[in-house]
Amino acid sequence: MSQPEQDDLLRKASDWWSTSIIDIHPGKIAVRGYPIEQLIGNVGFTDMIWLMLRGELPTRGQSALLEAALVPGVDHGPHAPSIAISRMAVSCGLPVNGAMASAVNVLDDVHGGAGQQCMELYRQIDAEAGADGELVDSAARVLERRRAAGDKMVPGFGHRFHPIDPRTEPLFALVDRAVTVGVVAGRYARIGRAVESVLRNTRSRPIPMNIDGITAVIFCELGFEPELGRGLFVLSRSVGILAHAWEQKQQGARIKGPMPKEIPYSYLGPERRDLPQRSDPKPR
Amino acid sequence: MSQPEQDDLLRKASDWWSTSIIDIHPGKIAVRGYPIEQLIGNVGFTDMIWLMLRGELPTRGQSALLEAALVPGVDHGPHAPSIAISRMAVSCGLPVNGAMASAVNVLDDVHGGAGQQCMELYRQIDAEAGADGELVDSAARVLERRRAAGDKMVPGFGHRFHPIDPRTEPLFALVDRAVTVGVVAGRYARIGRAVESVLRNTRSRPIPMNIDGITAVIFCELGFEPELGRGLFVLSRSVGILAHAWEQKQQGARIKGPMPKEIPYSYLGPERRDLPQRSDPKPR
Amino acid sequence: MSQPEQDDLLRKASDWWSTSIIDIHPGKIAVRGYPIEQLIGNVGFTDMIWLMLRGELPTRGQSALLEAALVPGVDHGPHAPSIAISRMAVSCGLPVNGAMASAVNVLDDVHGGAGQQCMELYRQIDAEAGADGELVDSAARVLERRRAAGDKMVPGFGHRFHPIDPRTEPLFALVDRAVTVGVVAGRYARIGRAVESVLRNTRSRPIPMNIDGITAVIFCELGFEPELGRGLFVLSRSVGILAHAWEQKQQGARIKGPMPKEIPYSYLGPERRDLPQRSDPKPR
Amino acid sequence: MSQPEQDDLLRKASDWWSTSIIDIHPGKIAVRGYPIEQLIGNVGFTDMIWLMLRGELPTRGQSALLEAALVPGVDHGPHAPSIAISRMAVSCGLPVNGAMASAVNVLDDVHGGAGQQCMELYRQIDAEAGADGELVDSAARVLERRRAAGDKMVPGFGHRFHPIDPRTEPLFALVDRAVTVGVVAGRYARIGRAVESVLRNTRSRPIPMNIDGITAVIFCELGFEPELGRGLFVLSRSVGILAHAWEQKQQGARIKGPMPKEIPYSYLGPERRDLPQRSDPKPR
Repeated sequence: MSQPEQDDLLRKASDWWSTSIIDIHPGKIAVRGYPIEQLIGNVGFTDMIWLMLRGELPTRGQSALLEAALVPGVDHGPHAPSIAISRMAVSCGLPVNGAMASAVNVLDDVHGGAGQQCMELYRQIDAEAGADGELVDSAARVLERRRAAGDKMVPGFGHRFHPIDPRTEPLFALVDRAVTVGVVAGRYARIGRAVESVLRNTRSRPIPMNIDGITAVIFCELGFEPELGRGLFVLSRSVGILAHAWEQKQQGARIKGPMPKEIPYSYLGPERRDLPQRSDPKPR
Repeated sequence: MSQPEQDDLLRKASDWWSTSIIDIHPGKIAVRGYPIEQLIGNVGFTDMIWLMLRGELPTRGQSALLEAALVPGVDHGPHAPSIAISRMAVSCGLPVNGAMASAVNVLDDVHGGAGQQCMELYRQIDAEAGADGELVDSAARVLERRRAAGDKMVPGFGHRFHPIDPRTEPLFALVDRAVTVGVVAGRYARIGRAVESVLRNTRSRPIPMNIDGITAVIFCELGFEPELGRGLFVLSRSVGILAHAWEQKQQGARIKGPMPKEIPYSYLGPERRDLPQRSDPKPR
Repeated sequence: MSQPEQDDLLRKASDWWSTSIIDIHPGKIAVRGYPIEQLIGNVGFTDMIWLMLRGELPTRGQSALLEAALVPGVDHGPHAPSIAISRMAVSCGLPVNGAMASAVNVLDDVHGGAGQQCMELYRQIDAEAGADGELVDSAARVLERRRAAGDKMVPGFGHRFHPIDPRTEPLFALVDRAVTVGVVAGRYARIGRAVESVLRNTRSRPIPMNIDGITAVIFCELGFEPELGRGLFVLSRSVGILAHAWEQKQQGARIKGPMPKEIPYSYLGPERRDLPQRSDPKPR
Repeated sequence: MSQPEQDDLLRKASDWWSTSIIDIHPGKIAVRGYPIEQLIGNVGFTDMIWLMLRGELPTRGQSALLEAALVPGVDHGPHAPSIAISRMAVSCGLPVNGAMASAVNVLDDVHGGAGQQCMELYRQIDAEAGADGELVDSAARVLERRRAAGDKMVPGFGHRFHPIDPRTEPLFALVDRAVTVGVVAGRYARIGRAVESVLRNTRSRPIPMNIDGITAVIFCELGFEPELGRGLFVLSRSVGILAHAWEQKQQGARIKGPMPKEIPYSYLGPERRDLPQRSDPKPR
């Protein structure tokens, strides 16, 4: 290979892993341009989450609102598959990183995607309304179109366990305060309320905003892309996943199944039967 | 709680984990009704895969064709992300189960979904043609509709590395033989060839059937659902993932990154800069 | 950089991912030296597993014995954490590759390591006995030393569910036959029986050989390293993990927890309490 | 089953998933006894991490020190396997939860365990010194014993990339300040310095404390168990894993291997060879 070809190839190899996030040289680390030694002790963990995901530091107000949204998602008890899986995993011998991996993995579309889907819904309504559209009407049209397309569930609204989600109102109060002091604009808070209003008027039973609906308001207000809404939820729930892994390790079970062995599972397959003689010829 | 309520609850708990696959009692195991002691030594591993996924045993001919399709997918070298991840994982301290988990996980839509997507394509063409439609015309219409919808790639056809995939022809020869002896009907073999024919006539450069396209033919001929096509590929590739994990463990690297450290990665973010003073007031 | 330095660096980059398993060039794939087109249709899936892990093809007898050992480990029902996790995972929205990843991950030391640990035990006994030592005495000494070191459990022996594991005897019969015809030497079969004999004479209740104990015999006879015993079990159990993922997908639950919600979990923590005022000053 | 037996069984089922972490009833959630609505907006994310893992809220000083330790571990660039795996995973089609799972999993003994191992080392030295032993002597004895046992590496000290780790000194300054104001006792800071001193006097080249060594000081000072040191690192690094997953998604590669395809990997196995005729008889 000629030297220019080698130059090209080595440049291509360097570009293969190009990033705008972190710059590292022996003895020097800079995150988004900021030397690590200046960040340590001067910015909080939530600031760092923002800086890593967005490229710039948040204002104090933005950081406080994001931080508040990270708090209530940490756990929803061992009936949640993510938590149960974490606990089962340590009983199989995994260290906490492994238990967290198996558990975080299941925060997928159904178990961890409602916030992201709700952000997408809010943004559809935002686009539908345009600059000066009425939000309730826009929300109604968007929800009607979704319903017509077969989408009966509204992500971020209703909860199969809580008639009223106790996490919604306190977070909404923080959003309102952030709007008042100009930290966020309030557009998505109004969109969220518009959806609530439409659901109140069109559904027979109440479908109030849940934790996913209000964190979607916050993440949209703060300018996060929907998929990062899922990512932020994963960061939050990882705390609970770790805490339960650790508690289970203290409790010390081995090969913990989903229920006590004394409760048998139902077998619905064929009765015991003998292996048939296979009559077709062995190939080759 | 009353006894009838308790009865109900315990029945509900048993039904929570109901299955038709396996029945277990102390000293007794039956898979799909067959006592395990009859299965051992009398059916092969591929037979067992079929029995577990389908509920009944395959004929010898079906089993041989499925087995042939499981062979070539086991590995495509360390440039494949699944294989590279497995090798990196053991260098971080993971045992083989953990390395396999991290690696198998990435056999998702893009890296492990082409076979499934190709099966769906073949089934669309099958439905398009109906009982007596012409397959090449049907394939052309389906591909044209996909192209109009923005889908330029045809899953199962073309390969970014192999001009001609060396795994296709030997597998197709086995399908043809299986059709001749009546093991499979041949409908999907004809559909696969119809797609090849359409691509030959409509594209400027050759896009021959690849490994995913021919295994999709086989899995469709054998009556598997598309998502099981992905599952079967995962079973096959798991072999290579394990083999490379093991080889890496023998080689003994620690914290193996993707390239030698001497090749730096490109940093594209902001220059080093000082942390700003934040001027907005502290919230709360 | 000078051309020789670049040469060196590019060679180092190539060596970074060196492997003896697979050689790939455009249009050409060879596994352990064998062209893929010769392997397809001529070797079975179990042969391929052996070739990938060991570097050479097995004899027909070796392959048949390995294949028999892969059959019974595929499943042990939804009370096994690996199976329950797979089913929970799909109910959270994961495709089969993701469900398999979360599940395979937990086949760790406790849930998937008994076979490997039993192989290590057998090899200790083999080393203890040396060329002409008595196996039962050697087994007794090794077990006594382990017990003295606090290791009460004997991996591969005893089962918390099956008084007699129905998978052991049929597999042992196959081993005996393989010894008779010279496929394997029989050393580890004798060691396994020696352990059984010691346990019969030293324990108050019967601790017969279980599935892990007999597959450990087979894998040792066939010359596999202990960690590959775990890997082979992962390949086998992956089949059940996939089958249950698929069955659960057909059943259609969403966010499936470990038990019906109607069975509450026990909360053992502090009573409801009010948040305290923190009296220490804010740092910085 | 009699009613008392059913009572027992249902109680056993409830106890199966017992926890002291979270109490949930319709419309009510309490974490470690604190109603969720009181926590929201009043405690920070780091407070919540502490509360979940430890059972009580931290003081402001404890929380600030923990928070500072979570900041610098978020990322160490795409040459780290955890980060590279995250980026490869999204290029295979995984959403961020899946990419995070595959990546977090590899934060195992070698890539994510140094902090935990260093905490264990510090605690060994603490125990060795007892109430009034000299710390440098105790550290020397412990390190000498480890070395004699073949353990050449000292977890938390030395770095294969940074001659001096730029994250150590700023964190140590925060520890010293926390000692001064009485937030922590300073015992582990002295132990850390004792290890540094021993290494300075006994090794030919400098092996200064790295990020794992100083975070181990902090986590020990704050009373965390060693395995939680690993867990806290996983929470921290999860931020970088998410940020790189997201950046890679914006860059848009498909099936991203570890190096450009133009750099071939070295194949070290046997030359191309023909499949042998197997001469041993078919079993059965």
